[in-house]
Amino acid sequence: MKDGYEIAVVHGDGIGPEVCGAAIEVLNAALDPGVLRFAEYPAGAGHFLATGESLPEATVQACGAADAILHGAAGLPGAVHPDGTEAGVDFSLKLRFGLDLYANIRPIRLYEGVESALAGIAPGGIDYVILRENSEGLYAARGAGSLLRGDVAVDTLVQTREGIERIVRKAFELARLSDGAPEDGVRRVTCCDKANVLRSYAFFRAVFDRIATEFPDIEAEHAIVDAMSMYLVQRPGHYNVIVTENMFGDILSDLAAATIGGLGMAPSAEVGESNGLFQPSHGSAPDIAGQGIANPYGMVLSAASMLDWLGHRHDDARLLDAAARIRRATEEALASGCLTTDLKGSATTRAVTDILCRALAA
Amino acid sequence: MKDGYEIAVVHGDGIGPEVCGAAIEVLNAALDPGVLRFAEYPAGAGHFLATGESLPEATVQACGAADAILHGAAGLPGAVHPDGTEAGVDFSLKLRFGLDLYANIRPIRLYEGVESALAGIAPGGIDYVILRENSEGLYAARGAGSLLRGDVAVDTLVQTREGIERIVRKAFELARLSDGAPEDGVRRVTCCDKANVLRSYAFFRAVFDRIATEFPDIEAEHAIVDAMSMYLVQRPGHYNVIVTENMFGDILSDLAAATIGGLGMAPSAEVGESNGLFQPSHGSAPDIAGQGIANPYGMVLSAASMLDWLGHRHDDARLLDAAARIRRATEEALASGCLTTDLKGSATTRAVTDILCRALAA
Ligand SMILES: CC(C)[C@H](C(=O)O)[C@@H](O)C(=O)O
Ligand SMILES: CC(C)[C@H](C(=O)O)[C@@H](O)C(=O)O
Repeated sequence: MKDGYEIAVVHGDGIGPEVCGAAIEVLNAALDPGVLRFAEYPAGAGHFLATGESLPEATVQACGAADAILHGAAGLPGAVHPDGTEAGVDFSLKLRFGLDLYANIRPIRLYEGVESALAGIAPGGIDYVILRENSEGLYAARGAGSLLRGDVAVDTLVQTREGIERIVRKAFELARLSDGAPEDGVRRVTCCDKANVLRSYAFFRAVFDRIATEFPDIEAEHAIVDAMSMYLVQRPGHYNVIVTENMFGDILSDLAAATIGGLGMAPSAEVGESNGLFQPSHGSAPDIAGQGIANPYGMVLSAASMLDWLGHRHDDARLLDAAARIRRATEEALASGCLTTDLKGSATTRAVTDILCRALAA
Repeated sequence: MKDGYEIAVVHGDGIGPEVCGAAIEVLNAALDPGVLRFAEYPAGAGHFLATGESLPEATVQACGAADAILHGAAGLPGAVHPDGTEAGVDFSLKLRFGLDLYANIRPIRLYEGVESALAGIAPGGIDYVILRENSEGLYAARGAGSLLRGDVAVDTLVQTREGIERIVRKAFELARLSDGAPEDGVRRVTCCDKANVLRSYAFFRAVFDRIATEFPDIEAEHAIVDAMSMYLVQRPGHYNVIVTENMFGDILSDLAAATIGGLGMAPSAEVGESNGLFQPSHGSAPDIAGQGIANPYGMVLSAASMLDWLGHRHDDARLLDAAARIRRATEEALASGCLTTDLKGSATTRAVTDILCRALAA
């Protein structure tokens, strides 16, 4: 346990500052003054458009030195690199790779009060974690793809034994700590791959199968990625922890978010051995930026994950307790109908922040 | 127009022979004797387990020489190559690449009588086509991936200007012939990629943007693949034609199928300049094989696509007319409640086949 923790904050673009601001208010309401010290650093598409640089080296250094990193969202139209990719994504990707944040934990939970896009799903009927490998896979090609004679474009997918082993182990550990799948209470890890067609995914599955033997108390199963995307719609209650390659995790976690009220409800934690980046799954939504109507729940829940991660890491009960209280306040606010427009309600970002802060002060 | 057409039939594994048999009965009921001549050839996981060979050269030759190819489904547990990938997939993949079947057309339509897994969707509310690039992309790595020192696995994603141009043109042509999106009747092509992160997908988008200018009458838009997977759940009515890379098309088409009653309702056509392969999107479902309960609608609709393709190619009105009658019979059968168990009904494969054949005879 430390007296206080340095949190590097990168607001980013679009609704980033709005949701990030809300989360900081909530964190401050949940903890005594001084436990968290926030310092802001620039990065993102806006910074790129203004300065030609998406991610200043000073920001990278500060993030690496901080106890944890809080990020809103990044990306704006027009902020594009010469190779056609976006400058807004540099922050996330450079930090993931630079700080080796190999585990991207994306909890998918349908809260009471929130309507699912799926028919016939009750609250509690969806409650699983997508554990996305965050340091290799198809994303290893970021910045390294080639375009030959302007005619042939190549990106390379790389999966390593070490990379697969550590993410699969983490999946089983998460399952062990969980309550199991909603449908049957079974603690279960599903390996999602494309082993039937591609060698690197067959390798992912083979490594998974070997690690699974270390966890005989947890059910292990396979799903091909195409079938998986169907199952997440047809029988989400079956899942507990899903572990998958970077690109597949990216796709499946957005799909999954659609079943629990949308990206605004989807928190995310990206952690490695010694650093953690906490940002919601959603993007910068420039179309609604500045209107005060962004859904801050995903960001607030990401902030709660940050407290959990810091709390476990530093054995600090204050943080674990605050995380639990933020989650409870969130559950209550949603169940009471405090819903933003994306959830078919009319609550503003301010209203959500206030209801959470009031609950935490009580 | 020809007197008759040679159809190479590969039943495959699991429920393959059941649905394929149903489709052939329906085709025969829709056309005069002799218009289609069926000849069966072996391939698939069963053949692999029996002979060590998944796809005999004679089958490849016969398929290449036929006017069209009809396939059930392939794949069985245990039919695995030394590199860990499946032997059952050889048939589809070798034909796709060998015959350059570059366009995989996957119509996604919610029929009256079929319940969607999505809440609040009316029949007619989902009606779009996923046009999957079928000859390159991540699948170019099939059989070519490497595993270094047993520790590092690599697969390579390749996208070419020529490959992208032809699939994108086809997308706009499909949109032009369509009724537009259900939501607003707008003829629209959505380019689905991961241009924000990877160079080859940014290239796909750039080529798309250029081809789009050739079709000023069709709306062109972009969606990042992760957002796309969410939109297919949240606002399926917005889509008309979606064009995307091979692997993304594989994932999105299964997801889409989940919203229209499942894979049993999802037909597929894989066509090139001179060959066409028609098989449903579903797999071999060995768990229900031999029970007579497989849903044949996807296969029957794939067979109708075959007639359309042959009819246009050979300017044969008999085939186009038969395709239209099969589709009408299918609509009526579904609307009348003739639903298989996967659609929460109790109709057998036989019962569906009979109702369709009776309607076609009338
Ligand atoms: C912003 C982008 C780089 C990112 C990704 O592709 O990983 C986002 O979609 C996510 O899921 O975190
Ligand atoms: C069977 C398999 C090779 C195939 C694919 O991955 O393309 C299937 O999933 C499909 O969608 O046609």
